[in-house]
Amino acid sequence: MSSQCHPEQGKRSQDDYQWRTDQGFGSRLLRPCRGMYHDVKRRMPYYWGDLREGFTYRVLSGTIRIYFINLLPAMAFQLDMSYNTGGFFGINEALLSSALAAIVFSLLSCQPLTVVGVTGLISLFNYTIYDIIKIYDVGLYPQFMVWVGIWAAIFHWMIAIFNLCDYMRTVTDFSSQTFGFYVGTVYVIKGCEELSIGFHDGQISNGFASALVAILYFLTVYLLEQMGQTTYTRTWLRTFLSDYAYVIATVWWTGFTHFPGNLAYAHFEYLPTTRPFYPTVDRPWVMKFWSLPVKWIFIAIPFGFLMTVLFYYDHNVSSLTAQARNFPLRKPAGFHWDFFLLGCTCLVGGVLNIPLPNGLVPQAPVHTDSVTYYKVESVVIETKNPDEPSIIRKTTTAESVAEQRISHLVMGLALVGTMTGPLLTVISLIPRAIISGVFFTVGMGSILTNPILTDKIAFLLRDPKFRQPSDPLNTVPRRQIWHYLFWQFLGFATSIAISQTVAAIGFPILITGLIPLRWKLLPRLFTRRELEVLDSLTATSEVVLVSLGGKPEMPEARRDLQMKQNRQSLEDGSGDVLEGTLKNDQGDLRQRK
Amino acid sequence: MSSQCHPEQGKRSQDDYQWRTDQGFGSRLLRPCRGMYHDVKRRMPYYWGDLREGFTYRVLSGTIRIYFINLLPAMAFQLDMSYNTGGFFGINEALLSSALAAIVFSLLSCQPLTVVGVTGLISLFNYTIYDIIKIYDVGLYPQFMVWVGIWAAIFHWMIAIFNLCDYMRTVTDFSSQTFGFYVGTVYVIKGCEELSIGFHDGQISNGFASALVAILYFLTVYLLEQMGQTTYTRTWLRTFLSDYAYVIATVWWTGFTHFPGNLAYAHFEYLPTTRPFYPTVDRPWVMKFWSLPVKWIFIAIPFGFLMTVLFYYDHNVSSLTAQARNFPLRKPAGFHWDFFLLGCTCLVGGVLNIPLPNGLVPQAPVHTDSVTYYKVESVVIETKNPDEPSIIRKTTTAESVAEQRISHLVMGLALVGTMTGPLLTVISLIPRAIISGVFFTVGMGSILTNPILTDKIAFLLRDPKFRQPSDPLNTVPRRQIWHYLFWQFLGFATSIAISQTVAAIGFPILITGLIPLRWKLLPRLFTRRELEVLDSLTATSEVVLVSLGGKPEMPEARRDLQMKQNRQSLEDGSGDVLEGTLKNDQGDLRQRK
Repeated sequence: MSSQCHPEQGKRSQDDYQWRTDQGFGSRLLRPCRGMYHDVKRRMPYYWGDLREGFTYRVLSGTIRIYFINLLPAMAFQLDMSYNTGGFFGINEALLSSALAAIVFSLLSCQPLTVVGVTGLISLFNYTIYDIIKIYDVGLYPQFMVWVGIWAAIFHWMIAIFNLCDYMRTVTDFSSQTFGFYVGTVYVIKGCEELSIGFHDGQISNGFASALVAILYFLTVYLLEQMGQTTYTRTWLRTFLSDYAYVIATVWWTGFTHFPGNLAYAHFEYLPTTRPFYPTVDRPWVMKFWSLPVKWIFIAIPFGFLMTVLFYYDHNVSSLTAQARNFPLRKPAGFHWDFFLLGCTCLVGGVLNIPLPNGLVPQAPVHTDSVTYYKVESVVIETKNPDEPSIIRKTTTAESVAEQRISHLVMGLALVGTMTGPLLTVISLIPRAIISGVFFTVGMGSILTNPILTDKIAFLLRDPKFRQPSDPLNTVPRRQIWHYLFWQFLGFATSIAISQTVAAIGFPILITGLIPLRWKLLPRLFTRRELEVLDSLTATSEVVLVSLGGKPEMPEARRDLQMKQNRQSLEDGSGDVLEGTLKNDQGDLRQRK
Repeated sequence: MSSQCHPEQGKRSQDDYQWRTDQGFGSRLLRPCRGMYHDVKRRMPYYWGDLREGFTYRVLSGTIRIYFINLLPAMAFQLDMSYNTGGFFGINEALLSSALAAIVFSLLSCQPLTVVGVTGLISLFNYTIYDIIKIYDVGLYPQFMVWVGIWAAIFHWMIAIFNLCDYMRTVTDFSSQTFGFYVGTVYVIKGCEELSIGFHDGQISNGFASALVAILYFLTVYLLEQMGQTTYTRTWLRTFLSDYAYVIATVWWTGFTHFPGNLAYAHFEYLPTTRPFYPTVDRPWVMKFWSLPVKWIFIAIPFGFLMTVLFYYDHNVSSLTAQARNFPLRKPAGFHWDFFLLGCTCLVGGVLNIPLPNGLVPQAPVHTDSVTYYKVESVVIETKNPDEPSIIRKTTTAESVAEQRISHLVMGLALVGTMTGPLLTVISLIPRAIISGVFFTVGMGSILTNPILTDKIAFLLRDPKFRQPSDPLNTVPRRQIWHYLFWQFLGFATSIAISQTVAAIGFPILITGLIPLRWKLLPRLFTRRELEVLDSLTATSEVVLVSLGGKPEMPEARRDLQMKQNRQSLEDGSGDVLEGTLKNDQGDLRQRK
């Protein structure tokens, strides 16, 4: 799928942040701040343009969409955290964290398309730590969390300074799609958990009514968004319905639950809010974290480290998918600088004891998508057989992306607005059922459009008679596709399993581990040709990879090259047969069969 | 769409039951029993084959499907009637009626594919009569209904004897699709009413839980049936899931409502049953109908007449759609004989005071469809442009229909089995929510596949850029398509409106009136070409039309012919210009623009 070449063989761009494959960990440590310096230098010239270009209609509709799909899950995760941490995190904390992150990242980051906010994983992380601390002394939790944030900030800065985000260039669909699938599933599970809470305390009718509203909300958004894919009605109406699907569905179903009659007897539960701008529990915004016993400050180190691993993967993969190869981007990325900035928000968030924000996985690519200009055309495909009428096909091409800071910034300001009294009252009108609906919508949206499902599983399940002959998967043995999926599902299933236990804290190691697995193990199990069909770098655009030191050489390509060299030296009568060469020959044989 | 020719010009078949356009009402009355005689004579030779050919797998799966979509709505209509007639009609009456009709029609009718049972319209009819009788003396209701049945039987026999079913050959898509849309909508409305009953008496949690189950049931059946349309999995598995969609969904969701925990607290309502084989209210099967005051016997005449008009349309349109032009039928139809038989079941049903059975409109074509052998093929469409890969398209062709009596007969026997004690107990496990689900499924199935929606409205709503150039609707001015739909919606809307009032009793006149409207008015408003694109005879197969005296000459074709003759005589200098000629010329001009 992607053509491989040595970065040093390609045309050397004017940018001198380039690494060769043989320049590993060591050489990165030796040049501190080099990545950040180049990130800022590269992006700076675009800054005013980023602001000026944000005043278009597409950006407005994108802003509204991202506001809804950021705000509603954030409140949901807050409910989840609140439920699991004895009410410590409330709606004000979630809103403050989201707003802080959005304003800082929209104004100061190199990648303003990567929306930042409160994720499900941080919620999982926070209450798993709560479960652990509870074993000793639950009163230590708030101060302990401050220290986890401080340590995380320090680790973030170190990663940014020593250019370690570079390794993100090795992220392929293998891990990013597995992670997307995992996060989508976590959303759906959270939606169900949220619904099951509706049944507590004998509130059976609230439970059923909420389940009903959540499912209808999901169907409404889903059908409205699908509308954009059809060829019905004019383009502007299709786009309108699809752009404002969340707004329409939220207003409609919120109104529905306020109907009189039987609906009133259901006693829907609504979102709990407290007085604006104050922490939910009775505490100052900054707690006396310095009074934590020294022992606990040190215990916080591994937790801060794990949080850093989580964000290293989660935030950077958000940026990668928000800048994935299907978006025609023109402005340079900046992973190192953004990760440094994330360290700063960790510090502030930690000190204020709010959930730490980071890149939103299913939402970030949705944000880029909603500010992308698509050209919709009808293509007439003439058929060879004159009796067969020609076919009209709808093609949608991404023409350009409104790469700007305004949608992210306005979303942040809107979140600040939401923290004020009057808008908090509006929030309190939204039934909790809609939160479940949003979970289903965002989660299923991420699952149903995941290429694991739409490409590979769809290919395997399709009746062989109806396979499109042009599909490159036809050239890979079916067994190898299953084999490839097996590794993805293994990663997915272990992540899901661990998330349900107190070991959830170790989950970032597991998910990040998928990258070396792909890099070290898979080339031994698959031929180069198979991997080129099955997998590809998540972001291939030069403007994205430039921040990470250029396009990496894929291990399977390197192996292939090695093999050729060995063969050459064999012919020259001077080399040994390496194990790798044998492996590759076997692969080639298998393919020929 | 259909090529028109004078029936007398076409090749004269060996069958001598043929009518010319100039042989109207009078000549039919003069040859009593001619239609029935030919129906039986034509179909008799196939009788043993009808039984022998019924022992195939396709018939088995068709039987199971039709059993479910006949039984569940029948019980639903019974609940509806029971609720609206002070509990007079119960489940035993509905089952007896369905079983009686199915056994009689499967063994003795000429058109065994037309499944017969308890419909929503008879339920509407019965409780509207109840509402009227209630004004005078509610105690008269049972005997009065017997007499309505007796009079209806007499009218049925007269129609059969005097060959009046012949007029059914003039039924076009204009009225049959409008009727399909109407019945589908009635089903959906009934589904909603049934759900709203779930909320009565403060049973809020039953109400919401039932709504939830009904919607999920609908989605389950819908998605399983859609599975058959996809290209996923092998043909046998796709077909299996689609064939047994109702069974799978009914078993699953019935089981679901019996789960312990929160679901048990919902207190689902289940189907009420009484002891087997006895009438629901304490009465003998045959009531002393002869003791009804003579005045009331005469008052029953117009009601019997209206019931006859209803069945004339409803039953015959069921037969037409069950034998519509998309099914490749080989065995002759027999409308006259079947209508005579329907008179007999009216008599028996009337005397036993059970709801009178007749042809089931949305179910009859589903039955034919489910015993049709479809050939699924992949067609490779080569494209002219060599860069464009060739396209694989799935084509489904109806190869043949298992035209047999077994599926209908076994369904009838299964209904008798259902009347026994043990199976009545199984029935009582089914929650009423599933009945609503069946209403939604059958109703939405009828609406969503109705060509009014899938062809015409889809065409009008489609973005003009994406219209298939081969679509014949392109040749009709858009304004005329809207105009045509206007008449269909007028018929639909007035039928829906009248069904909600006590005037519902007159509804058959309204729906039957669509046939002369199409025949007399539409040719004045549309050109021949337009009508040929917009409308067509519902059944065009020769084996079907043979029972109705051959293919009719369409009025627009006759008008066209007249015009040509006039033009001819004008050229000969001897004729007048008729108004119709002018109209047609205008139409031609408009088309040329």
